[in-house]
Amino acid sequence: MDYLSEFNSNIAHINKSLDMYFRDSDMLEDFSRVVRYSLLAGGKRVRPMLLLEFYKLQSGMSGYGGGAMIFACAVEMIHTYSLIHDDLPCMDNDDYRRGQLTSHKKFGEARAVLAGDALLNKAFELIFTEAAGSGIPAEIILEAGKVISAASGSRGMVGGQILDMENEGFSAGPQRVEITSELKTGALFSAACECGVILGGGGVQEREAAKRYARDTGLAFQIMDDILNVEGTKENMGKSIGSDKANRKVTFVDIYGAAECKSKVSQLTASAQKAVSGFRDSGYAVWLSGFLSERNR
Amino acid sequence: MDYLSEFNSNIAHINKSLDMYFRDSDMLEDFSRVVRYSLLAGGKRVRPMLLLEFYKLQSGMSGYGGGAMIFACAVEMIHTYSLIHDDLPCMDNDDYRRGQLTSHKKFGEARAVLAGDALLNKAFELIFTEAAGSGIPAEIILEAGKVISAASGSRGMVGGQILDMENEGFSAGPQRVEITSELKTGALFSAACECGVILGGGGVQEREAAKRYARDTGLAFQIMDDILNVEGTKENMGKSIGSDKANRKVTFVDIYGAAECKSKVSQLTASAQKAVSGFRDSGYAVWLSGFLSERNR
Repeated sequence: MDYLSEFNSNIAHINKSLDMYFRDSDMLEDFSRVVRYSLLAGGKRVRPMLLLEFYKLQSGMSGYGGGAMIFACAVEMIHTYSLIHDDLPCMDNDDYRRGQLTSHKKFGEARAVLAGDALLNKAFELIFTEAAGSGIPAEIILEAGKVISAASGSRGMVGGQILDMENEGFSAGPQRVEITSELKTGALFSAACECGVILGGGGVQEREAAKRYARDTGLAFQIMDDILNVEGTKENMGKSIGSDKANRKVTFVDIYGAAECKSKVSQLTASAQKAVSGFRDSGYAVWLSGFLSERNR
Repeated sequence: MDYLSEFNSNIAHINKSLDMYFRDSDMLEDFSRVVRYSLLAGGKRVRPMLLLEFYKLQSGMSGYGGGAMIFACAVEMIHTYSLIHDDLPCMDNDDYRRGQLTSHKKFGEARAVLAGDALLNKAFELIFTEAAGSGIPAEIILEAGKVISAASGSRGMVGGQILDMENEGFSAGPQRVEITSELKTGALFSAACECGVILGGGGVQEREAAKRYARDTGLAFQIMDDILNVEGTKENMGKSIGSDKANRKVTFVDIYGAAECKSKVSQLTASAQKAVSGFRDSGYAVWLSGFLSERNR
């Protein structure tokens, strides 16, 4: 199987598991529909894919059926919750996401806030319940949960969104924009990769390598996002284009210009690819880093 | 020490621990202030107190210094997150809470949403990080985390808030109002009590007794809340009075009238007190259930 087919096959497996893990009691069927609207709307599933890939790099086994997939779904739920909340009118006020109306445009703000809350709760419930029942040793589950919860909280993604809002008004400098990206995007990329290694039984050295790969890939990914927010089309991106400018946000493109941004993306991708050279069979991880940096959506 | 002094001492210990557990890096100092504004605003700390009390009932030891306090703080963070989100303009649109302006009135909606998110994340981070470092066996942590995350998610508190919003318009019947209360209030009361027993090493029988106590105390507590929402004063309650009527919500008072509600509270309290009769030294739990049902705030 070539890498692109593997990529699409990964997405299909992840989608199937996400579909399975967010079903709820009949009484709240209507609300379950609200949550599933955002969770199953597509998306590249990069974070869960990274988790599964690093699990495989570490353990030599596919993570499709076991505890790694549970953590992968948890990570995607955390990502989706953050998108729903970040899109709210009081935050970035976006109307489109993943090619469809945002949750609050479709179901109203109250349900959107609660859909995000439900997903964040569910992510941790999955870890405590399903992962605990999957045969992974309890100490390993706690260690992986620690890494993920640290990445999603106020020293991670929530902090990144706070900084992102404070960056409005075109006043942030390069360092500030990079820290924002590290928290908002890098933290969960990093947690996903590290978590895969932890679940696969890896030690400090492998965890560090996974984090280096994640940091570089995540930063390249965010820079590409900024480029595409200027050069992309709404059709390709599935979300509103030019929203950064409308929200008066400083982006990497504002700071470095598009040409230097593209050169940075290339450097970061090469650096990410080097970081995984110590793993056997790192072909897919190398390809994925390149693929993400050449995407047009 | 008499029970009221013990009650106040419990609150002081819980507040001290909450103050210790939500501090953040300097970079996000401003945001940390937003979160701490709601978290440290007072409140009766009923849920963490129940957790600590059932830990003590089960183990015979104080939970002040150990892992039980970490879970107690996590439960109070989850409760506080839910208050912040429920108070938002798109939900109950409340201006006052715990005697001060609500988070969104003070800091704006975006920060209020994120403060809630940060608290929910932090609750689970505490469990994965601090509880894991406290010497509690990993399996016990996972079991307790499972109970708490199930109570806070879409089959628990989030589901309760969804139902609560759908109850607007004075159309809900008795059963529906009771289910709403069970999910919105009862679920976390129950999880707190059960979690205390789990951490104290209790088995199925003690867990069931704790849940019975919690269910009755929680329902009595919610009925009292509805009574006080009609008969209380803003000064005593620290929040807006009459908001249920303004939001056209069906309450227990609408369904049964104030007199029958008070009689129900007495019955539930007696039933809760009976539920803990199998524990040694249940004097405080018995007193607490009575105290909460006679409160005027």
